[in-house]
Amino acid sequence: MGSTLSRRIFLGVLLAGGCSVGSASALAQTDPLPSWNDGPVKKSITDFVPRVTTPGSADFVPVPERIATFDNDGTLWAEQPIYFQVLFAFDRVKVLAPQHPEWKTKPPFKFVLAGDFKGLAAAGEKALFEIMRVTHTGMSTEDFAKDVTQWITTAKHPRFDRLYTDLVYQPMLELLAHLRANGFKTFIVSGGTIEFMRTWTDRVYGIPPEQVVGSSFATQYQFNGGNPRLMRDPKIDFIDDKTGKPVGIDRFIGRRPVFAFGNSDGDQQMLEWTAGGGGARFMGLVHHTDAVREWAYDRNSHVGRLDKALDEANARGWTVVDMKRDWKVIFPFEK
Amino acid sequence: MGSTLSRRIFLGVLLAGGCSVGSASALAQTDPLPSWNDGPVKKSITDFVPRVTTPGSADFVPVPERIATFDNDGTLWAEQPIYFQVLFAFDRVKVLAPQHPEWKTKPPFKFVLAGDFKGLAAAGEKALFEIMRVTHTGMSTEDFAKDVTQWITTAKHPRFDRLYTDLVYQPMLELLAHLRANGFKTFIVSGGTIEFMRTWTDRVYGIPPEQVVGSSFATQYQFNGGNPRLMRDPKIDFIDDKTGKPVGIDRFIGRRPVFAFGNSDGDQQMLEWTAGGGGARFMGLVHHTDAVREWAYDRNSHVGRLDKALDEANARGWTVVDMKRDWKVIFPFEK
Repeated sequence: MGSTLSRRIFLGVLLAGGCSVGSASALAQTDPLPSWNDGPVKKSITDFVPRVTTPGSADFVPVPERIATFDNDGTLWAEQPIYFQVLFAFDRVKVLAPQHPEWKTKPPFKFVLAGDFKGLAAAGEKALFEIMRVTHTGMSTEDFAKDVTQWITTAKHPRFDRLYTDLVYQPMLELLAHLRANGFKTFIVSGGTIEFMRTWTDRVYGIPPEQVVGSSFATQYQFNGGNPRLMRDPKIDFIDDKTGKPVGIDRFIGRRPVFAFGNSDGDQQMLEWTAGGGGARFMGLVHHTDAVREWAYDRNSHVGRLDKALDEANARGWTVVDMKRDWKVIFPFEK
Repeated sequence: MGSTLSRRIFLGVLLAGGCSVGSASALAQTDPLPSWNDGPVKKSITDFVPRVTTPGSADFVPVPERIATFDNDGTLWAEQPIYFQVLFAFDRVKVLAPQHPEWKTKPPFKFVLAGDFKGLAAAGEKALFEIMRVTHTGMSTEDFAKDVTQWITTAKHPRFDRLYTDLVYQPMLELLAHLRANGFKTFIVSGGTIEFMRTWTDRVYGIPPEQVVGSSFATQYQFNGGNPRLMRDPKIDFIDDKTGKPVGIDRFIGRRPVFAFGNSDGDQQMLEWTAGGGGARFMGLVHHTDAVREWAYDRNSHVGRLDKALDEANARGWTVVDMKRDWKVIFPFEK
C-alpha cells in the first residue's frame, strides 16, 4: 500500500460510527427538542422545520425531497479518545492474538497488545492499515457483522465504562426523531465504514441499513457449491470523507440534502454541497466545547479536527452548536 | 483503456434503465395483477406475497426486511434493438455533432452519424466507450441530468414510435405496486448507470432516486467561488452487473433481498444471492418469448442474453415468466 492510499485509509477509516439507546419515543409532547437549551441554535432548528414543511410556505419542500444527512463520529456519537471503529479494531487484535503468537513481538500488533499507542502512532498509517486489514477483511460480510455485533453489545468505553452505543448524543436523537416526524428521511454520511455501522444504526438511531452511506472495503462475490458469499477484500473501495461526502451523497442518495449536520473539516464539503442547492437549507456543526461532560477540542485535534469548516460556518452563518451552552443533556444516561 | 476495462464498460454500461407511464393506481381492486394470465407463474407470486406478509405465518418477514430488487433493462422495460441508454448516447452524438465537424469522418463517431452500426460493432468496445465518454462525462451531474430528461421526454423508439418510457412492462408496474402495497421496498439493481435512470424512475416506476442501484462513472467535487459542483469523470466507478449485483446490493442496501427479478445472465448472481438468504425467497426471470408483441430472444442474443441463468432457474425451480403465455398485456398503451 502506497502512502497516499494509507493516508486515505487513515482518514477514511478513522471516522466511524455509532450509537446509543434512549427511547426517542419518550420525548416531551410539547417540545420536540427538550435536551436543547433555548437560544439561537435551537431556534435555528425550530424555525427551519416549519419553514420547509408548511404547505404554502415560500420555502416549502415536498416530502420526497426532505433529505437530511448526518455525519456520525462526533456528530451523532462521541469520537474520543479515538474513533470507536479504531477501538473495535484494537479489541479485535486482542481477540485474534491467541491464534497469532508471533504478534507479541511483531509490529504493529505488539503495540496494540501492549497498549503502546505512542509506538503505534510512530509506526504510521501503514501500521494502522495493517490493523484494519486483519480485523476488517478476509472474512465474509456475515462473519464481519457478527464480529461487530459481539463488540458493540459488550465492549465498554474506557472513560465512561459504558457501551459505546450509550455515548450517542441525546439532543441529536431528538433532532433525528423530530425531522422524521416532519417527513424527512434521515441518512448517515460517515467516513467510517458502512458495514461497521449498519448492524446497529437502526436500533440506536432509527436509521436503517439502506440509509447508511460511508467508506467501504471492496467485496467479492463467491459461489461455492450453491453457497453464495461476499468476501471482504483488503482493498479500499471508497473513502466517504471531505470531497468524498458530496460524491457519496450523489451516488447513494441521488438528491441534494435540505438539512445536513457535521462536526469537523471532514464535513465541510457536505455542508457546502447542501448549501449550494438553492432554496431553504440548514447547515449545522457540532462544536465540542464541554471538557467536563464530554470533550473540548477543535482546531488542533488529531480526531475530528474542526478548523476550516468552523471558519466557513462563521463566515456563511451556518448553525454552530456550542455543546456546553446549547445541550442540556449530552448522553441519554444523564436524563 | 485496456480491453478488460473496455469489456467491463461494454457489459456494464449497456444495461440501462427506464420506463413508463400507466397509472399504477388504476389497478383493479380485486386482482392486484390484472395483466398477468392465470397459471403457475402468476400463482407463484400470489402465493408468495401472503406467505411472507401474513403475521403468524412460518415464513413471515418483518416490513423492514421486505426488500425487493429488480433489474431494469429487459425486466422493467424493453431493451431491443439495443439497451436504450446506448440509443441515448447515439442520439447525443447527433446533437453534439455540429460542435464537432471532424466527427463526420472520424471513427467511431462517423459510424453513429451515418447509422452504420455494423461499422460501429466492428470498431469494438473501445469505440463504444469513446461514445459513452463524450456523451456521459465531462459535464456536471446537473447538466447530465438535463440531457437525460430532454431525451427521455422526447426521443421515440424506432419500432413503436413511442417514448422509451412507454415501453415499460405493464405487468411489472402492477407487480411493483402490489409489493409496495404489501410493505416491500422496491429497488432497481441495474447494469445501466445510476444517473441515467434516476431522473425518471420515480415518475415512471414509483422508485425514488435513493432506491436506484446501478453502474456509475466517478464524479469529482469542485468548489469554485462558492459554487459546488460534481463533475462526471471518464472513469468507471462501479459495474453493477453479474457478480457486481450482489456487491452493489450489499453496498447500497445492506440487506439481502427477499424478492428479486431479472431477465438475463447478468442477473444470475443477484438471484443466487437472494436465494441464499434462507427462509422464503422469490426468484424470478422474464423470458422474452413474444416476437409479435415484443421480441423473442434468449441464449444467443447480443442484448440481454439468457442462457446459464435459465438453466439455473429451471434446475432450482425459480419462476420463469413466459412473456407470450403469462402476460395478457405487455405495454401500458395496449390496455
